[in-house]
Amino acid sequence: MKDKSFKVGDLVLLIDSRGKKYLVKIKDKKASFHFHRGEVRFADIIGKKEGDVVFTSKGERVFLFLPTLWEYILKMKRGAQVIYPKDIGEILILADVFCGAKVLEAGTGSGALTLGLLRAVGKYGKVVSYEKRKEFFEIAKNNIEKFQKIRKEEWGKLELKNKDLKKGIDEKNFDRAFLDLPDPWNFLEIVKKALKPGGILTCYLPTVLQVFNLVETVEEKYSKDFYLMGIYEILKRDWQKREKSLRPKDRMVAHTGFIILFKKINR
Amino acid sequence: MKDKSFKVGDLVLLIDSRGKKYLVKIKDKKASFHFHRGEVRFADIIGKKEGDVVFTSKGERVFLFLPTLWEYILKMKRGAQVIYPKDIGEILILADVFCGAKVLEAGTGSGALTLGLLRAVGKYGKVVSYEKRKEFFEIAKNNIEKFQKIRKEEWGKLELKNKDLKKGIDEKNFDRAFLDLPDPWNFLEIVKKALKPGGILTCYLPTVLQVFNLVETVEEKYSKDFYLMGIYEILKRDWQKREKSLRPKDRMVAHTGFIILFKKINR
Amino acid sequence: MKDKSFKVGDLVLLIDSRGKKYLVKIKDKKASFHFHRGEVRFADIIGKKEGDVVFTSKGERVFLFLPTLWEYILKMKRGAQVIYPKDIGEILILADVFCGAKVLEAGTGSGALTLGLLRAVGKYGKVVSYEKRKEFFEIAKNNIEKFQKIRKEEWGKLELKNKDLKKGIDEKNFDRAFLDLPDPWNFLEIVKKALKPGGILTCYLPTVLQVFNLVETVEEKYSKDFYLMGIYEILKRDWQKREKSLRPKDRMVAHTGFIILFKKINR
Amino acid sequence: MKDKSFKVGDLVLLIDSRGKKYLVKIKDKKASFHFHRGEVRFADIIGKKEGDVVFTSKGERVFLFLPTLWEYILKMKRGAQVIYPKDIGEILILADVFCGAKVLEAGTGSGALTLGLLRAVGKYGKVVSYEKRKEFFEIAKNNIEKFQKIRKEEWGKLELKNKDLKKGIDEKNFDRAFLDLPDPWNFLEIVKKALKPGGILTCYLPTVLQVFNLVETVEEKYSKDFYLMGIYEILKRDWQKREKSLRPKDRMVAHTGFIILFKKINR
Repeated sequence: MKDKSFKVGDLVLLIDSRGKKYLVKIKDKKASFHFHRGEVRFADIIGKKEGDVVFTSKGERVFLFLPTLWEYILKMKRGAQVIYPKDIGEILILADVFCGAKVLEAGTGSGALTLGLLRAVGKYGKVVSYEKRKEFFEIAKNNIEKFQKIRKEEWGKLELKNKDLKKGIDEKNFDRAFLDLPDPWNFLEIVKKALKPGGILTCYLPTVLQVFNLVETVEEKYSKDFYLMGIYEILKRDWQKREKSLRPKDRMVAHTGFIILFKKINR
Repeated sequence: MKDKSFKVGDLVLLIDSRGKKYLVKIKDKKASFHFHRGEVRFADIIGKKEGDVVFTSKGERVFLFLPTLWEYILKMKRGAQVIYPKDIGEILILADVFCGAKVLEAGTGSGALTLGLLRAVGKYGKVVSYEKRKEFFEIAKNNIEKFQKIRKEEWGKLELKNKDLKKGIDEKNFDRAFLDLPDPWNFLEIVKKALKPGGILTCYLPTVLQVFNLVETVEEKYSKDFYLMGIYEILKRDWQKREKSLRPKDRMVAHTGFIILFKKINR
Repeated sequence: MKDKSFKVGDLVLLIDSRGKKYLVKIKDKKASFHFHRGEVRFADIIGKKEGDVVFTSKGERVFLFLPTLWEYILKMKRGAQVIYPKDIGEILILADVFCGAKVLEAGTGSGALTLGLLRAVGKYGKVVSYEKRKEFFEIAKNNIEKFQKIRKEEWGKLELKNKDLKKGIDEKNFDRAFLDLPDPWNFLEIVKKALKPGGILTCYLPTVLQVFNLVETVEEKYSKDFYLMGIYEILKRDWQKREKSLRPKDRMVAHTGFIILFKKINR
Repeated sequence: MKDKSFKVGDLVLLIDSRGKKYLVKIKDKKASFHFHRGEVRFADIIGKKEGDVVFTSKGERVFLFLPTLWEYILKMKRGAQVIYPKDIGEILILADVFCGAKVLEAGTGSGALTLGLLRAVGKYGKVVSYEKRKEFFEIAKNNIEKFQKIRKEEWGKLELKNKDLKKGIDEKNFDRAFLDLPDPWNFLEIVKKALKPGGILTCYLPTVLQVFNLVETVEEKYSKDFYLMGIYEILKRDWQKREKSLRPKDRMVAHTGFIILFKKINR
């Protein structure tokens, strides 16, 4: 990770004494970031490094960090609903995304999973991502570029297409495919041709009837092409410690989506 | 991923018609793998590819695959309790492991997380992993080598040390550190020197008193070195579809460990 | 609760040093109960009271108790799948069963919920329960009588009918109705006539398509008769303490059934 | 349940078209209840019955109900944090509260569990409840009386005491005891004398260190008096159906308290 000092134009993650996070662009050195705990002068941030502390005009302590991917996803602009970080982590391990893999994604949405994939496939890998809606395509493109500018890593190669996957693709031999679409059953014909034997298809669906329709369609029409590995949902519970009290936080996210995985077979 | 045919000496993942998985080494072509659904002749497997089907002597269908990382972890030899795949996925995203990162781990245990880290940091990254117990060190070494032989990927560089981390390390400037040890509070002094400012420390603990002790120790002695990002637990629920029935499976893993994350600060 | 001593013919709950429970009938005073921790002589139990201790032939400690309702349910003979105690507790509060209520149930199944209802409605209340399958009717009858013999309480009045509820009922003005049937949507016509305005209908269903069909049917055909209060599922997580370790147990029940509640309206 | 018409002075539960609930006292027939969906004239409510519909001045549909116990608890005035209905249901079944039981409670808090107990023990049962804080004692008293006026049931007998349980009690032979106090370990000496052998003590604690301290104290000092039945937490997940979408709601309560149960023994 880059080790250099914050300068004008950088995005910095501020964390206040309550743990509240602000993703802020460092503007002119005479300007400031204002929030309810006071004013943070950009002049105080410039020249500081990751992990350093500054103080607001009200004397409140603020930490300076580069955002992690998940902190960035929770702050970035959303066109579509993003896939939550908790699910991205699980998807990457369940779908067995590896360094060097060639991956197909549709739709790009806001680019949250795309960023996770680009990181996981790394420098020798490639992500081809389809998004038919112009607006989301632009948002995703911007979200991805912005984070890749913040975090100089060995990112995978990206081909972002403002195109409907239904119209077909030329490429073949994908190692992995990801469908974050409301009707993945309509894309099985295309994916079955694009995916290598042994390759893995991951679908992400918010409601149970969609899950049923997907699995039913595979059973009825694609039982020689796809093998169901599993249907999963992930719950993440946050805990908090205060003095002698350790306990789960009061409320949690109860649902985001179901993760459904298939292996491509040659039956 | 390699595209070639299975041959003698390879490890192959067999999945039977009930979804039961067997990780089997292909031995002599005259030999067979026997299980309660019949006999699978290695001669039938040799020359086949990922995603292909063979049949047992009882006519049962069996799929041939290369194991995913998580399938391998659930089958590999265990010295210590492994970190479950569901937690590895979350840890990689929460700890923000990226392609090219330099990572410290202790203890190696059976090598499950190590494999996840080696994949995530990729070709330009590096994992330095400490395991003081000779027996576990050997098991982990073997587990890792075996999987890296199965899956030709752009793996990160590994330094596996049969040494107690408590005795200190020479290297510095780690981007990430992972402590899967019963008493991580005794390693904070070492980690604080090894980790870059802005770097992330992840601890994994099975019981709540350990979590309390860790966070209490940081609050009392290391509040100028570490900032608590969060305490998490992950629940994964598997669903099943049978005919018109879609429902969660009857039983699930209720607990593995708590994930506790800190950012290194310069206060 | 009765305070008297255990005697021949009584059912007694034995709990061994590992927490394992045995529901045992006290037979002849010369006989014994044998299990892997040794032999418990009935002569040692006779004359003892709830909460007392006896020792096996191997010197192991065994506690003597009257079973609670939920301990009994987990041990009693099952014809149909029982409604789990965790769900019975929730159903009784969510469905607002009160002392003195008049309650309709179908099907009786093994009688687990019936026992919960009989206790909740108490002496001035009444439970009318339908079970069309002769075999389950007999099992339930026996299960209920056996527990009522063990626990002398102010039980509600029970009318247990070996009859298909679909064939209709004469009675009206039920305060509460419970359908533990695979196709509750086929009983809405009958229940709507049997239930008081403001009364509550509770359905219990294991799969999501059943839940969908039920709510869809009410929305399409019974929107003037039933108001959906909610759809719920209950997860119960057991914890364990050992020395300084406090943590959830490794495994848990991940799913039993969905609880769906409606209020009877006059639209 | 009473079947009569709503009249001035009654409490009525209004449910609007979005499922939002309002517990409203019917005042003068010339007055109205105002909310953001319009005005409901009390004159329209008076004479109506449970399950009937009225319309607001904006033409919105509103259902009229008597509140269930859990709907009432969520609306009633809170001195202390109430025990959530989901936990009350589980506590009543786990602690095996039965019709006719004699029950001890401390502290009364806002009276939520007290109401659940009074209903469960029914006409021949009795609840003795201690609350040392005058303010909470008054709130609980009022909450209980108000609900008992709404719902004419076969309530158990209540002795509500504005007194610290630590100062001791005269009565003995309780079947069940409930401690919703931050330091239940300080009450074990008193409860052990008050509870019958075979009786059940239930404690309710929000944090894990409290759970640890309680169980540790019993193990060290009261192992001849109390047998640990279990430590539990309950998660309730709400689902929603909209058109063809069936899925869990977005957010849920992640934590309320741990339920710890002991049986009184004579060792």
